Amino acid sequence: MLPFDFQLRPRIVFGAGVIEQLGPLASQLGGKVVLVVSDPGVVKAGHFGTGLQSLEAAGLVVHSFHEFTENPTTDFIDAGVEVARRVKPDLIVGLGGGSSMDCAKGINFVYSCGGQIKDYWGVGKATADLLPMIAVPTTSGTGSEAQSFALISDAKTHVKMACGDRRAACAIALLDPALTLTQPYAVTALTGIDALSHALETHVTTRRNAISSTFSREAFRLISNNLSRVLDASDDLEARGCMQFGACLAGMAIETSMLGAAHATANPLTARYGVTHGQAVGLMLPHVVRFNGQHYPELYSELLAEIDPRESQHDAPEQIAQRVTEVVRKAGLKTTLRELGIAAEVLPELAADASQQWTGSFNPVPVNADNLLTLYQAAL
Amino acid sequence: MLPFDFQLRPRIVFGAGVIEQLGPLASQLGGKVVLVVSDPGVVKAGHFGTGLQSLEAAGLVVHSFHEFTENPTTDFIDAGVEVARRVKPDLIVGLGGGSSMDCAKGINFVYSCGGQIKDYWGVGKATADLLPMIAVPTTSGTGSEAQSFALISDAKTHVKMACGDRRAACAIALLDPALTLTQPYAVTALTGIDALSHALETHVTTRRNAISSTFSREAFRLISNNLSRVLDASDDLEARGCMQFGACLAGMAIETSMLGAAHATANPLTARYGVTHGQAVGLMLPHVVRFNGQHYPELYSELLAEIDPRESQHDAPEQIAQRVTEVVRKAGLKTTLRELGIAAEVLPELAADASQQWTGSFNPVPVNADNLLTLYQAAL
Ligand SMILES: [Fe+2]
Ligand SMILES: [Fe+2]
Repeated sequence: MLPFDFQLRPRIVFGAGVIEQLGPLASQLGGKVVLVVSDPGVVKAGHFGTGLQSLEAAGLVVHSFHEFTENPTTDFIDAGVEVARRVKPDLIVGLGGGSSMDCAKGINFVYSCGGQIKDYWGVGKATADLLPMIAVPTTSGTGSEAQSFALISDAKTHVKMACGDRRAACAIALLDPALTLTQPYAVTALTGIDALSHALETHVTTRRNAISSTFSREAFRLISNNLSRVLDASDDLEARGCMQFGACLAGMAIETSMLGAAHATANPLTARYGVTHGQAVGLMLPHVVRFNGQHYPELYSELLAEIDPRESQHDAPEQIAQRVTEVVRKAGLKTTLRELGIAAEVLPELAADASQQWTGSFNPVPVNADNLLTLYQAAL
Repeated sequence: MLPFDFQLRPRIVFGAGVIEQLGPLASQLGGKVVLVVSDPGVVKAGHFGTGLQSLEAAGLVVHSFHEFTENPTTDFIDAGVEVARRVKPDLIVGLGGGSSMDCAKGINFVYSCGGQIKDYWGVGKATADLLPMIAVPTTSGTGSEAQSFALISDAKTHVKMACGDRRAACAIALLDPALTLTQPYAVTALTGIDALSHALETHVTTRRNAISSTFSREAFRLISNNLSRVLDASDDLEARGCMQFGACLAGMAIETSMLGAAHATANPLTARYGVTHGQAVGLMLPHVVRFNGQHYPELYSELLAEIDPRESQHDAPEQIAQRVTEVVRKAGLKTTLRELGIAAEVLPELAADASQQWTGSFNPVPVNADNLLTLYQAAL
């Protein structure tokens, strides 16, 4: 058993309808003036309004910031910080998908500690306590609500900066599966596949440990057993709850275990070609599972046993890789780079980029531009 | 999925040798004057000395309290509070078995909030913040390091009072499996069976939920697979680590799931006849598993799948009950009440007592003096 040092900061409040508790919980944290960071899709779906109502009913003054998109950039953070400096919140709520929560964390870093978001790229760079935060996820994907990293892209270079600090973790994660019912099909698919990739990658990294594995295994079980269900029946609240809690567990696993080569190879696809994160990671993941599985078949056997105990375990990596491809296809996503219009000639550049990704350094099999290139070639 | 509201307060630092970090971690929490609560057995084993060294090397002033025994009573708490009032600590360390950690929590309640320990019997009765605490378990049993309850017995009536409050949870749980190597065989056996009972009971209570089940299942897997190993080879550090982390996970599960009828029936055996907790709970547990298993066989199937996925699951409760009896016998403990010298005539009194236990109210099958009597009769 490898040593670990783990602190789950957020209190986790789970249940259909718990969005009604947002106001009282914000008050419990001492909030009087709240900045709610919520993407436009979530405003349209009505969830921002529900949260607003609960906050105002509890007597809080509410300001909001909605002017950002998927994969929030440094520009959006700057705009949000300007709003924060004007309204002077004492509490921040990230209500929406991973982008809303990351954007809220990014604004909190800069508003609370000064400077620019890139000053906090890395681990433990916060220079002061951050404002207390409440995360209210409306997708089941990043698990941002459970961990202390904000992913912010450089507006110019499109490089994804992971900014992590214990003090950036949320005080409360409010998990209301009813909020995830309104996701468009594509969002359910893309975020669900991302969550699946987090369960799979955290289970095998060089930083995996007894507590991250506890979370990875249960996350894998919940997500594997329920992703197809929510794709088939978007209103299945029980399956939605399993997906939401599974994604949250995978986020808890990321906190100490980090991620691996599927994320290292996915990020350049997003940065260079604008491929959505879930599409990119879902496409690369089967190849990474086969690659890592040659050296760590037993880790994949442990996962396979979670969902199919009677299955023969001798080719667990291959079985899991095929299951991932199946669900990616079922979700209506592409399973080859060629389908995305990516040509063989650019693969060496992608591999060079991927070899610079911090997240690749935690992959159980050491990666470099050469073996990352073979992964892209396999995915072509 | 049932709603839940969970906060894991302690930071968990795990690894062989992490006792060396006790001093630096105490300093991180702002400690300058420390009261270390440590039972005499742990002093004798040298672990108190190791902790003392680390604390003094970090520049802390250390006072200690050792004058208490197993199942700490109100009298011991009063004595410890007197020491605390004299030395005025700003941090408390519970270094030892469940008794040391419970005693430390109990002293903290009264020193920080005034009054008597019985004022805090129940949940959420603390009237002020408690001093920060570090738990350093040297047994793998109660999981007290991971949850916010102190179990203190009334010195006169021997009633076990569960005193729980969020603010009584430890700031840090320092899990060093090397500290558990020196346990006498009987302590390994008794505490290990207690931990096993926590995994089993938390998995089935009326309060079970998605997060407690995550912990219960992994705790059950780790403890089931390693209890025999540590009984056979006391110096197996890997197995000791699994037991220690398993017991901690079971403690995390208790925090939201509570316990059930095995604890309700065990407590009167301890209060009236001085039967050790692990012996009492291990003896009653198989009968409670059969009793609950009639109505909730699927919950026991989930557990059995954790340790023997290829086993036929149709009689999971019976298989688990038999496995518990086997390990209780292997540990050299009694498996019937008669062997403990308890006669059929006293069973109705025990059942009446058991029906008053708070913990019984969380058993999945509602219990009363009548059906508790049948449990004692089955265990006779
Ligand atoms: Fe991801
Ligand atoms: Fe117990």
